[in-house]
Amino acid sequence: MKPSPASERSLRLAPDGVSVLILDQTLLPHAVKTVRLRTLDQAAHAIRTMQVRGSNLIGVTAAYGLALALRVDPSDRGLDSAYAVLIETRPTAVNLRWALDLMREHLRGIPVARRIEAAYAKAAELLEDDVATNRAIGDHGLEIFRKLLAKRPPGEPLRVLTHCNAGRIATLDWGTATAPIYRAQQEGLPIHVWVSETRPRNQGAALTAWELGGRQVPHTLIADNAAGHLMQHGLVDVVIVGADRVTAQGDVANKIGTYLKALAAREHGIPFYVAFVGGSVDWNLLDGVRDIPIEQRSAREVTHITGMTAAGKRVEVRLAPEGTIARNDGFDVTPAKFITGLITERGVCRASAAGLARLFGRAAAQRR
Amino acid sequence: MKPSPASERSLRLAPDGVSVLILDQTLLPHAVKTVRLRTLDQAAHAIRTMQVRGSNLIGVTAAYGLALALRVDPSDRGLDSAYAVLIETRPTAVNLRWALDLMREHLRGIPVARRIEAAYAKAAELLEDDVATNRAIGDHGLEIFRKLLAKRPPGEPLRVLTHCNAGRIATLDWGTATAPIYRAQQEGLPIHVWVSETRPRNQGAALTAWELGGRQVPHTLIADNAAGHLMQHGLVDVVIVGADRVTAQGDVANKIGTYLKALAAREHGIPFYVAFVGGSVDWNLLDGVRDIPIEQRSAREVTHITGMTAAGKRVEVRLAPEGTIARNDGFDVTPAKFITGLITERGVCRASAAGLARLFGRAAAQRR
Repeated sequence: MKPSPASERSLRLAPDGVSVLILDQTLLPHAVKTVRLRTLDQAAHAIRTMQVRGSNLIGVTAAYGLALALRVDPSDRGLDSAYAVLIETRPTAVNLRWALDLMREHLRGIPVARRIEAAYAKAAELLEDDVATNRAIGDHGLEIFRKLLAKRPPGEPLRVLTHCNAGRIATLDWGTATAPIYRAQQEGLPIHVWVSETRPRNQGAALTAWELGGRQVPHTLIADNAAGHLMQHGLVDVVIVGADRVTAQGDVANKIGTYLKALAAREHGIPFYVAFVGGSVDWNLLDGVRDIPIEQRSAREVTHITGMTAAGKRVEVRLAPEGTIARNDGFDVTPAKFITGLITERGVCRASAAGLARLFGRAAAQRR
Repeated sequence: MKPSPASERSLRLAPDGVSVLILDQTLLPHAVKTVRLRTLDQAAHAIRTMQVRGSNLIGVTAAYGLALALRVDPSDRGLDSAYAVLIETRPTAVNLRWALDLMREHLRGIPVARRIEAAYAKAAELLEDDVATNRAIGDHGLEIFRKLLAKRPPGEPLRVLTHCNAGRIATLDWGTATAPIYRAQQEGLPIHVWVSETRPRNQGAALTAWELGGRQVPHTLIADNAAGHLMQHGLVDVVIVGADRVTAQGDVANKIGTYLKALAAREHGIPFYVAFVGGSVDWNLLDGVRDIPIEQRSAREVTHITGMTAAGKRVEVRLAPEGTIARNDGFDVTPAKFITGLITERGVCRASAAGLARLFGRAAAQRR
């Protein structure tokens, strides 16, 4: 049993076996629109404009983007030029580079005449690998949830708080942070999710609430500001978030606001877990606060917001006085000491160099 | 020198000496509209709909509301019935009750023929008392800012973080949390303010950014989520917030999200101050987390937001999927142990029963 039928995947090969259908995530939750990618440029555009988002999904989209490009020019030159276009779409996405490198290396070894077919096959493999990886994260996280649920009064749900969207629309079928949630639901465990809205881009309100709602997972939306108050009043049993990058000592870069939740969780003795695929570990970095560069995003994301009017029109509105200067750090870093455990496809470990080394060993010095 | 000329006050007596002019705070920052209050009902409406907000301003508005009512019926019955209308406008506002009780007691002792005049005089007295009180808070806070500034490299500004709006539009001329900021500016001290947007009602983005901008105080708007990250990177020198209610042991109820900032400030050794007038102390309460009731506000404040379109139209838009359940706690409580000091019109004290008792003594068992 899969929680996400292939027809509802946020990326899938079209029935024509050539074009790729993606869910346009920029329109959520107001419109569920499928976009068909027929060309390299369309794939690059989808990544660049964040119609697809989430490191794994970006990687898979790029892999299919190469396949689409090879249909026009399967030569080495065609391969290299498509690679160059795609690598530029999201320059800081580690998984994008990883997927493109893997594809290019694989395809170079294959005769030009068979490259298109091979590209589609490899992209499909990446996609299915991703699904299996996320499912494994869900299984490992499920065991944690089971233990925590055993401490709750009988019949009472496990109250999980999550931030941003590390969900099934970003990492296929299961998500990372949401994988244990969907697995718990599948197993019939009572669960309730506090969805932190995640200003300024509101991925919690727009994406996580949407995908949990679509799966009938009980959830309640809260302002980011409310997390400390809920924990103080004993209303949160566990926090689980995703990661954009994890250092070799277990520091975690994730959506801005994650760190405040970690501080509150520690203050109130609430377990704080981070779920991610091994590819998110940057083995070259140790001190995340010092060394992970934090993307400075547009001030407009803070001063303006897009929503749906009562008349059903999607509009952007300004929230702050005209000309207000805003600062918009995209991520923050939660040091390992605040993290109860890291949940990966290889199992759960302490957020430490030793913990990560035990799970991933030397072999993991290469990504995935 | 006053930072806020009377003509810019968010409440003032009109030149006709009868009606009251208020700034409609619900339209900020998109429109600066003055509303004239001519009747009791108009005054009650202004309080109820939050055209005026901030505990002191509500009290002063109610006092003028009584004066307007007495112009129609200055009898005891008229006084009592106006009192009854006004007390219902914001049932949990302590200062509203305090101001109305004081006015009624005062006016009952005055012959009916002289009551109207006396009501206007007393309301004006409340207003000027408020201004003097807030100025005193500013003076005490200024000394703290001076000391903190002395630790900064020469010429570098003091970087103050505030949350919500405890500003001059809510407590006249100076505000409470903003009073030391305006005093510092007046004294020519370099200062920069991080304005936390304060979801879900965005009082930071809409009101604090607006009033600081109007006074040319350098400031930068941030998402609430960013506070921990900024502190972690040494970009915040002091946090100062207002208070909705303070217990006799120094626990502070303030806008939701205050507690998360206090946790982060403690983690990074950043002083965290709360500025308020003595009337905000509830001498009957000790444990704020246990005993301060937290207002549950409309879910719509989380799922929807109002802003200005590019076409200059003020519209409400929906941010979350239709039908999303949201929880909206209006306030949270920051326990005294996280608070470096309390700044009041009587001086600065530790956030403790002893500290508050020293400043306010037994006499303070009655409000103000």
